[in-house]
Amino acid sequence: MPITVAALRETAAGERRVAITPEMAKKLRGKGLRVLLERGAGAAAGFPDTVYADADFASAGEVLAQADLLACVLPPEDAVFAQLREGALVVGQLRPYGAPSRIAALAAHKLTAFALELLPRTTRAQAMDVLSSQAAVAGYRAMLIAAEAAPKFFPMLTTAAGTIRPSKVLVIGAGVAGLQAIATARRLGAQTEGYDVRPETREQVESLGAKFLDLGVSAAGSGGYARELSAEERAAQQQALAEHLKAFDVVVSTAAVPGRAAPKILTAAMIEGMKPGALVVDLAAESGGNCELTRPGERVEHGGVTILGPLNLPAGAPLHASEMYARNVVNFAELLLKDGALAPDFDDELVAKSCLARGGEAMFKG
Amino acid sequence: MPITVAALRETAAGERRVAITPEMAKKLRGKGLRVLLERGAGAAAGFPDTVYADADFASAGEVLAQADLLACVLPPEDAVFAQLREGALVVGQLRPYGAPSRIAALAAHKLTAFALELLPRTTRAQAMDVLSSQAAVAGYRAMLIAAEAAPKFFPMLTTAAGTIRPSKVLVIGAGVAGLQAIATARRLGAQTEGYDVRPETREQVESLGAKFLDLGVSAAGSGGYARELSAEERAAQQQALAEHLKAFDVVVSTAAVPGRAAPKILTAAMIEGMKPGALVVDLAAESGGNCELTRPGERVEHGGVTILGPLNLPAGAPLHASEMYARNVVNFAELLLKDGALAPDFDDELVAKSCLARGGEAMFKG
Repeated sequence: MPITVAALRETAAGERRVAITPEMAKKLRGKGLRVLLERGAGAAAGFPDTVYADADFASAGEVLAQADLLACVLPPEDAVFAQLREGALVVGQLRPYGAPSRIAALAAHKLTAFALELLPRTTRAQAMDVLSSQAAVAGYRAMLIAAEAAPKFFPMLTTAAGTIRPSKVLVIGAGVAGLQAIATARRLGAQTEGYDVRPETREQVESLGAKFLDLGVSAAGSGGYARELSAEERAAQQQALAEHLKAFDVVVSTAAVPGRAAPKILTAAMIEGMKPGALVVDLAAESGGNCELTRPGERVEHGGVTILGPLNLPAGAPLHASEMYARNVVNFAELLLKDGALAPDFDDELVAKSCLARGGEAMFKG
Repeated sequence: MPITVAALRETAAGERRVAITPEMAKKLRGKGLRVLLERGAGAAAGFPDTVYADADFASAGEVLAQADLLACVLPPEDAVFAQLREGALVVGQLRPYGAPSRIAALAAHKLTAFALELLPRTTRAQAMDVLSSQAAVAGYRAMLIAAEAAPKFFPMLTTAAGTIRPSKVLVIGAGVAGLQAIATARRLGAQTEGYDVRPETREQVESLGAKFLDLGVSAAGSGGYARELSAEERAAQQQALAEHLKAFDVVVSTAAVPGRAAPKILTAAMIEGMKPGALVVDLAAESGGNCELTRPGERVEHGGVTILGPLNLPAGAPLHASEMYARNVVNFAELLLKDGALAPDFDDELVAKSCLARGGEAMFKG
């Protein structure tokens, strides 16, 4: 019997991605594995069942009963785990932080689970790095949402009735999402600046043709993330930022560190100092927001400034987001395979560090 | 007493533009005119009353009682005309087609009204051409809406997990809106093609770096618009277009002729032949749509293809749209002034051809 790699139709609200695309089903089958999907699993992503030439389809119950490895985009309801066979593997964005009941359920059903968010951000892990691939989609989409919601044109426009000046756009946080947001604003012709407390990002921001906004606060941290600022540093940062913000039409903020609440960078007072009609898109809404006025999933108007806190942005470009995600998943799944069997090597740090549960035990404390 | 140029807060649903901006108020005052606005007139466009250094503010009733020239973005309710003084001028997009009651009301109240949509599209009229300036905003915004709603990335994206191919985008109709839509798709990195029945548009499409889609049907018309196609030409066009449409991820259609229903270019059968997940944004929704499935203002799903029919797109970027619109209005108003008094010269074709009503008589049959 070949190993069965399975995926369900995602059930989280608004989720349209799928963990296994037709391209990846073909690749898995090429390796001698069987791909089994819940009927309609890819439909919302733009992949109707008919375009999967290399997958079988069944009901959710049948899929779970036969799965050796269940791939998912977001964690299913805990009750789903009970329907998997003992020893089955679960791979995906399992949202490991602050979810002890999920980890307990995985352990209780003797599943071996890997949360791809926990992969160390090493060179070898890049091809499996779902945080990066999905952040790229999020950054791109955040800037499109900003451009669409802005009362101004992004590009300069020269018309018979005179010239329209380009918008001034600031991107806060120059991680993958921030850099993609900067690239998109630049493509659209906006005058774009990028800000990050990590000084090493200056070169990346400038390589995209944007200006690096230097507020004189530096906070290089570990693992590529910024460290938390001291109270004094925060005060200096906020004072300098408040002054600069007055010049911008659009701010897209992307500062986030997995497993922690997003740093509060934009205060109500700073928002009140912005131009009437200015727009803030807070990409960190999911983890509480970079702006203290952000309400996740909502539109807030405050003194003439609009603050948007969109959620799950990658799900809004589900076809390409799924393509990248499924490649990440399959690259990780290859780590787990040996001679056509599932045999995770826990001496491999990518395997060990992403493991949430194994042999009935929780391996991660969220 | 100086001439009073006035504007109200626009009342059409969703309308956020304003006919007189702070910049144009300053210009008018520099010419010795008085600017009088309804309180809050520019607020939705991003111009609170406080930023108008050169205007007075009053209630709508007071504004109308004192106006010598009322500038508007869209026509107000007919009842508003009764509040203007006999002989006052009205200038704006007065939607002259199919609106005999509006023209009758203007005449009945002995107003002199100019519909800027009726300006001949000559070189001299370019600086007053509201159709062009607002179409530029509409084309830009239509493509942003398309990019945001599309399940795919527009640009190519190279990631550690492989490459994401750029989207293929087709723009139907290469007028001002279509060309701006093409420019925006190109900026965003999409593989972009443009199609128009007017062969002279090829060069414009290609100058934006897009490919001209040649379906072998040519219909150069008058005034820069296409003539209507014969039944045979339409059949040839549709057959060729149906074949090409299968390749595109996104179609933005912009074919419209003022005062006529939009040509039906995209049939249900053509939509059914498109890729699952494909997207159509029908800019002609306001005049019935280029796609026979379009429902104005709504989102239609048909066999895996999404059809959006957005309305009043310029109102969505009200600050810049108002800036351009107000410049158009003021450039036209200058035509009407002589030695600081309002004295329209009806021997000027720009004045004569845009006139809807004058001295108690209707001058235009919609």
